[in-house]
Amino acid sequence: MLAFTVDHHALKQTSKRLAKLRPGWALVRVRLAGICNTDVEILRGYHNFRGTPGHEFVGEVQEVSGISAAAKNRWIGKRVAGEINIACRALGFRPVCRFCKRGLTRHCERRKVLGIVAHDGAFAEYLTLPVENLHVIPDSISDEAAVFVEPLAAACEILDQVPTKQFREAAVLGDGKLAQLIARVLRSALPRVVLYGKHPEKLALARRAKIATKRVRGDASDLNRVKEEFALIVEATGSPTGLALAQEMTEARGTLVLKSTFHGATPVETWPIVVKELSLVGSRCGPFDKAIALLRSRKIDPRPLITRTFPLQQASAAIAFAQKSGVMKVLLRA
Amino acid sequence: MLAFTVDHHALKQTSKRLAKLRPGWALVRVRLAGICNTDVEILRGYHNFRGTPGHEFVGEVQEVSGISAAAKNRWIGKRVAGEINIACRALGFRPVCRFCKRGLTRHCERRKVLGIVAHDGAFAEYLTLPVENLHVIPDSISDEAAVFVEPLAAACEILDQVPTKQFREAAVLGDGKLAQLIARVLRSALPRVVLYGKHPEKLALARRAKIATKRVRGDASDLNRVKEEFALIVEATGSPTGLALAQEMTEARGTLVLKSTFHGATPVETWPIVVKELSLVGSRCGPFDKAIALLRSRKIDPRPLITRTFPLQQASAAIAFAQKSGVMKVLLRA
Repeated sequence: MLAFTVDHHALKQTSKRLAKLRPGWALVRVRLAGICNTDVEILRGYHNFRGTPGHEFVGEVQEVSGISAAAKNRWIGKRVAGEINIACRALGFRPVCRFCKRGLTRHCERRKVLGIVAHDGAFAEYLTLPVENLHVIPDSISDEAAVFVEPLAAACEILDQVPTKQFREAAVLGDGKLAQLIARVLRSALPRVVLYGKHPEKLALARRAKIATKRVRGDASDLNRVKEEFALIVEATGSPTGLALAQEMTEARGTLVLKSTFHGATPVETWPIVVKELSLVGSRCGPFDKAIALLRSRKIDPRPLITRTFPLQQASAAIAFAQKSGVMKVLLRA
Repeated sequence: MLAFTVDHHALKQTSKRLAKLRPGWALVRVRLAGICNTDVEILRGYHNFRGTPGHEFVGEVQEVSGISAAAKNRWIGKRVAGEINIACRALGFRPVCRFCKRGLTRHCERRKVLGIVAHDGAFAEYLTLPVENLHVIPDSISDEAAVFVEPLAAACEILDQVPTKQFREAAVLGDGKLAQLIARVLRSALPRVVLYGKHPEKLALARRAKIATKRVRGDASDLNRVKEEFALIVEATGSPTGLALAQEMTEARGTLVLKSTFHGATPVETWPIVVKELSLVGSRCGPFDKAIALLRSRKIDPRPLITRTFPLQQASAAIAFAQKSGVMKVLLRA
């Protein structure tokens, strides 16, 4: 496992970052950061990332470089969440890549990704991001809710990818942090959402958000036990066995959204995809504005998903705690 | 391997079939049948099908049951191709299933499938199908072209599933029979189609149909050699390794159509689907009317894909021959 020394690292970085803040970039003081399963994967070696992890945060803009004084004044002191994909333009590449040209900056070919690819992340006192990545958090949204903007946006991505209005119901496989947010986002758009999970206490959390739940044992025998079929299913188990169950549960011509990003090859029977003519849709990062609107409207309150908040100095302990069974969102307060 | 005794079997069946022809069904005398890789899979035990295989054919209507004399006269003697999925209504089920209700009879929950699921197929002198499954073949289309209507329709399914007009080019992985038809169908709609295959002589066939070709070795090292990316890719290798290469070659937000139906689990890394937000679209049977229109217009001539025609009596030898390297379409003449 990567040596994780946030305390010294972050402090050392701050002055360096301030000194070399690129034009159009902001220095953000992190207020609260969330631990995501991806962070755990990163600490296990995923992406070969060496640096400070963390990509879910709410912070305060401290400094902005290379923009007009008026623009600067609009930013400094603002509470913000930040999009994690840093694209061509902000990285100084001209001409921009074919994806940036099409406006798909989240798929920029040269992108760096906050706390994931070649750019230090949010488990620190300070981070830097291009101003174009920042979204101001309205005062009515608390830090504890705002720290969910990034994963909630990832859940909202499904609304942009799938014509959800065409469906009467949906199933979400998995009862973890992301699955819970996805179920809440889908429930904001559909009359019925069923969440399938292994943990009674996590299922209870979902029920309080008007989500139907079903308990599964999570082994191969569930393929025979779970007989329900859905036209729209989201696989968010984070487990290699989730896809087979999801395929089984997706009806002919149905849509199966993939959200899990575990690593390593999984044995998959692909013929059911062909025979049932399923559509599998990979889904990663999403629209921050939709996530902020959902929090502002109070249609979704993610705060019951917080299990515990640690001080930043105890980041290693927090990450160890986040991996324990039954633990949901763990936060770091800088 | 299943005992394959077409000669006696078919003759015995004919009188039985005539005697019990359901209302709305037709008895068809097979003129020419095509051997598909699925037939080979079936003979290896896929679908546990016991009976006469074969689902690609052109034949002549001999008898029709339970429709008006006028309607009967319109059918008898007509040359036809036949859709292979036999749905609720033709099977006598009332009410029809949820898929038939939506008009998705190809996905009927109770379907039988000609030569594949619980209904004897086309490697015989006669077969039966519901009249609603039959499509009249115009006189201008020869038997040798018409026998391709079923697989060509399967290729045309992609045009119904993917907004091909939005793409400037496409890649097809695989140089086999179905891959070749798919490349031709896509080429009828797009200015550039590139077919990736292992066999120089098959690639040459494609080039004659104005399809660009690239040779690949077909092992894992190709993942590093094939650097091209496409927004639209069709995986039709029929091989478990095809999917990984296809994923690699599909650009972010791109569409990957799956056509291969080999059996057994394949190790697949699913995270690239998520990170690149790919859409995977399973694709099976397709619209016969489009296939017939393509043949009629001469936009596609599948006849160069025929390697050899055997008499029906030599069906076993024909199937063995069809599995040899370099062999394309093998036909059976009844």
